[in-house]
Amino acid sequence: MFISFEGIDGSGKSTQARRLAQSLREGGAEVVLTREPGGSPGAEEIRKLLVEGGGERWSPETELLLFTAARRDHVERLIRPALARKATVITDRFADSSRVYQGLARAENRLLVEDLHRLVIGIEPDLTFVIDIAPDISLARGTLRGGAEDRFESLGLEFQQRLRRGFLDLAAELPDRLRIIDGSGTEDEVAARVLAALP
Amino acid sequence: MFISFEGIDGSGKSTQARRLAQSLREGGAEVVLTREPGGSPGAEEIRKLLVEGGGERWSPETELLLFTAARRDHVERLIRPALARKATVITDRFADSSRVYQGLARAENRLLVEDLHRLVIGIEPDLTFVIDIAPDISLARGTLRGGAEDRFESLGLEFQQRLRRGFLDLAAELPDRLRIIDGSGTEDEVAARVLAALP
Repeated sequence: MFISFEGIDGSGKSTQARRLAQSLREGGAEVVLTREPGGSPGAEEIRKLLVEGGGERWSPETELLLFTAARRDHVERLIRPALARKATVITDRFADSSRVYQGLARAENRLLVEDLHRLVIGIEPDLTFVIDIAPDISLARGTLRGGAEDRFESLGLEFQQRLRRGFLDLAAELPDRLRIIDGSGTEDEVAARVLAALP
Repeated sequence: MFISFEGIDGSGKSTQARRLAQSLREGGAEVVLTREPGGSPGAEEIRKLLVEGGGERWSPETELLLFTAARRDHVERLIRPALARKATVITDRFADSSRVYQGLARAENRLLVEDLHRLVIGIEPDLTFVIDIAPDISLARGTLRGGAEDRFESLGLEFQQRLRRGFLDLAAELPDRLRIIDGSGTEDEVAARVLAALP
């Protein structure tokens, strides 16, 4: 099974991905916990180009090509081999992040995301949890990473609000795969909601 | 005018690109001399991922996505602005290198090169010089760079021979744009052939 967690920065999705991996491992499954951008040695190198530097470092199109290159490496070197040996793969972000982030920059780039996905990625998660939270709550939690990897977080509250809307719209568009999880409350409460939403 | 130089490693195309830039500048033109992968600050950073490391560092598809990301940055930040102000742009390699190098790895990747080019690049040189030389002559000249940037050169003589054939086949396919220049003889002799082939 291939599961992704999506949501805005500071939504708690990384924590919840780790919690779900722990729960499934306790049930005896082999679980590969990974993340994007990155997840394989080559993709982690591309990640540095993406998450560091200023907001204008890359155009939306160049950025999307770099994300797609990292995803291709991640899929072919980590995700597909793990799925082939029947492991469960849980990833913190996947192609839906490109649909929402790069699709926001220009409306026609949502089509470009789909074209590139079809050409070189061609795999979707079986199930995607969208951890939904108001951006002001995630900011108040103080869980943002800060440091060098703040290129997207530095884009501001209004941008995070547009991203949240983007994830909710995507969930409405793809209800069979995406499940919206209320990200408010304690870590334990959110983890219980994720487990309850498993098929 | 937008001019590219193509050919195998050590063919002398970088030297000839520089010579042509000098000749045109002496005639009073503004000439932007550039190269791929690279040519703009962002693309030069992506270049490091491409030209360093072992031959198996990236799959052909990931490699192509990285080349395309670098090319998009190069086109939008250097080439298009220069052409817009009526400068002549001379580049040491462009999309034909992807057609030949990435197209060699797997036959169907030549189609992928064209799809990506159409989606995110969409510009071709007005004129392309293919500096043609036998790989054993280029090796004997000792003009290969060596050092860290030898990822493609390290692929061997037989690979260079296949690349040469790939460039000649491409020139046969696109005779209106590509001009084959005999790369044997002295630097001056080859430079004279390039000038004679200008429209």
